[in-house]
Amino acid sequence: MSKPKGFEKPVGVKDYLPHAVSRLRRIERDVLECMRRWGYEQIMTPTLEYYDTVGVASATSDQKLFKLLNQRGTTIVLRSDMTSPIARVAASLLKDRPFPLRLSYHANVFRAFEEEAGRDAEFFQTGVELIGDPSSEADAEVIALAIASLQAAGVPSFKIAVGHVGFLNGLFGEALPGRLEEQESLKACLLQRDYVGYRETLRRLELEDAVRAELEGLLRLRGGAEAGEQALQMCGSEDARAAIRQLLEVWEALGAYGLQQHVMIDLTMIGDFSYYTGMTFEGYASHLGFPVCSGGRYDNLLAQFGRPAAATGFALKTTRILDIAEKEEPEGAGRTLVAYTREQRRDALLEAERMRADGLAVTTLALAADSPDWAELRENASRTETFAFRDAWYDSLLVYGMGEGEKA
Amino acid sequence: MSKPKGFEKPVGVKDYLPHAVSRLRRIERDVLECMRRWGYEQIMTPTLEYYDTVGVASATSDQKLFKLLNQRGTTIVLRSDMTSPIARVAASLLKDRPFPLRLSYHANVFRAFEEEAGRDAEFFQTGVELIGDPSSEADAEVIALAIASLQAAGVPSFKIAVGHVGFLNGLFGEALPGRLEEQESLKACLLQRDYVGYRETLRRLELEDAVRAELEGLLRLRGGAEAGEQALQMCGSEDARAAIRQLLEVWEALGAYGLQQHVMIDLTMIGDFSYYTGMTFEGYASHLGFPVCSGGRYDNLLAQFGRPAAATGFALKTTRILDIAEKEEPEGAGRTLVAYTREQRRDALLEAERMRADGLAVTTLALAADSPDWAELRENASRTETFAFRDAWYDSLLVYGMGEGEKA
Repeated sequence: MSKPKGFEKPVGVKDYLPHAVSRLRRIERDVLECMRRWGYEQIMTPTLEYYDTVGVASATSDQKLFKLLNQRGTTIVLRSDMTSPIARVAASLLKDRPFPLRLSYHANVFRAFEEEAGRDAEFFQTGVELIGDPSSEADAEVIALAIASLQAAGVPSFKIAVGHVGFLNGLFGEALPGRLEEQESLKACLLQRDYVGYRETLRRLELEDAVRAELEGLLRLRGGAEAGEQALQMCGSEDARAAIRQLLEVWEALGAYGLQQHVMIDLTMIGDFSYYTGMTFEGYASHLGFPVCSGGRYDNLLAQFGRPAAATGFALKTTRILDIAEKEEPEGAGRTLVAYTREQRRDALLEAERMRADGLAVTTLALAADSPDWAELRENASRTETFAFRDAWYDSLLVYGMGEGEKA
Repeated sequence: MSKPKGFEKPVGVKDYLPHAVSRLRRIERDVLECMRRWGYEQIMTPTLEYYDTVGVASATSDQKLFKLLNQRGTTIVLRSDMTSPIARVAASLLKDRPFPLRLSYHANVFRAFEEEAGRDAEFFQTGVELIGDPSSEADAEVIALAIASLQAAGVPSFKIAVGHVGFLNGLFGEALPGRLEEQESLKACLLQRDYVGYRETLRRLELEDAVRAELEGLLRLRGGAEAGEQALQMCGSEDARAAIRQLLEVWEALGAYGLQQHVMIDLTMIGDFSYYTGMTFEGYASHLGFPVCSGGRYDNLLAQFGRPAAATGFALKTTRILDIAEKEEPEGAGRTLVAYTREQRRDALLEAERMRADGLAVTTLALAADSPDWAELRENASRTETFAFRDAWYDSLLVYGMGEGEKA
């Protein structure tokens, strides 16, 4: 392979220039503040984790994990999500803190994609985990908080689709008993939201007409409580019916939050994380072909770290939200240039210090007394509007030199 | 090797629990705000960089770089500092923006230490780069900003030691011409601040008495401008004398900032980064055996990325400051528990929403009407002080259930 050129960076990673950083930081700050107001406390975990612990427990497939060897020959991974590391912390450093734990985070995570895929190898997530509460109230709380977080992030319009892992497992188990491979290929279509492929797969399977009709009917099970009621009528599997009853409890609790208008029951929903055990959800923003948040219940993960507990949570896909979030960080008003000659340096730097103490962004510029730049600066000093000097923009100018200090 | 246990994480990395995150976030916010007021704009670069570009350009020795192979077989590193990535960005994405560039960052960086060393493999730095200004004013600006940043971080008392790479190179080149290995062993002692070892190494070398006296005298060249004046008298090398004159210009400019009381000239100072070409400095806090910040001038690094430019900058060792910073983030006053029975859920959740809009941190708790927890909650509801419930602390309590809502 050829050596990379000096200005190149690895495929799938990004530089964020000041304007983008300002937007990203604004979202980070506002979403974390929203989570704080819901009683969630922020934690941070390392970028590096053991493959055999957090790597294996994560829902990321093996070939998408970034792996390296440490000096002892143990395999290390770059974290691919925050749910498994937080489960590790809940079961170790926080093992004496009683449930429920409410924890929040903002972190970069990593995926080793094929270079051709054009997908992000490093991206940001902002999320919460609610650990130790098995109730539907807890599921409703994290959905309600996901909605509040999307609003805090400035996502202008979105819809949350809620499903349940147990419904699809129960339905397929009943309709296609023992035919695990066929169940998996149908689930794979639903995961990709490929309904055409789902129908084609159904047609290829040898099924009784009633069963095929039931499985095709699944695609219509989207809406409010009525979608759940239809599913209860259509479906005989006790597991599937129990899942729907749980989902209807969550739906009802979301009514108490006054949030049902942001949510739809979507029984074709299948979470993309293998550790989900109950309710799962995804948030979709207008005009975007991918989810802006996802979450769900994972009641078996904590046991892998030695402290069995029910848990539920979600993550905002913060990097994806960056381009659609409507709130702008107000530009730091009052960018000021303080230019001075050597003789008046002391006065100029003292004034810069005073202005910084007032919160202004002040750049200082030392110029020789005979610098040709003085003419341009003096011209700007007589104006009141924003001006550019050496390609940077300023709102005001203070000139110390060849006379008294003057303010623009 | 044995498989790591579920709760283990790799050696040299840390979890930050909520209290530590609160402190770290406070420092991050206040220091970045300080840098903004000095006209620096924040950028972010990826965790992963090519070994052949940023990896090689960084001052980190090869065996301390975390390396992995991507799917094409190209070597990737986890960034070990931010100076080289920012140089890459200045020469690529920002290549059309004229100098000087003022850029700031807060980022985690990585070092692959021997496991036995007990040192951090991942830690945070907060710093700036001032690119495209070769003047002593620029060097003074970054030292002044380092002082302002340490104050913003809440480091209670500290001293900045300033030296110059050119002085030691000139002095040793003159005193030990061509004896590069011996020069290196003396420099190694100074880098470790091992003055005993320095004197012992001098004694072992075959030197004329006058030369030995000059090299021993170096250890006394610490203080204000007078240390520079002494060095000028003692030293014949023109390179060394030019370095001292530059340093005295920086010292004088720091006088104009009114900051000389925080700074000392220390001509034994040798920056620990191989790319330094001029002034270098380190900050020391009382009672700490390691620097809390370091910086210097690096006029040759940008050329490696195709846009030659003088540059100077520094980084706070943010993780180290965490334990000594005096300012505490005020605890979010008003942590409130809202407990409710099913019947009053809607009212309770609406009230929680109102309180969150006011900035309070509100946790909600659904309880069955016959829950034994009611007795404890009702007892707390009559108190006004802080109380604990299920091991979490709250400042106030709102109870919805079995009667009217009551405020503690």
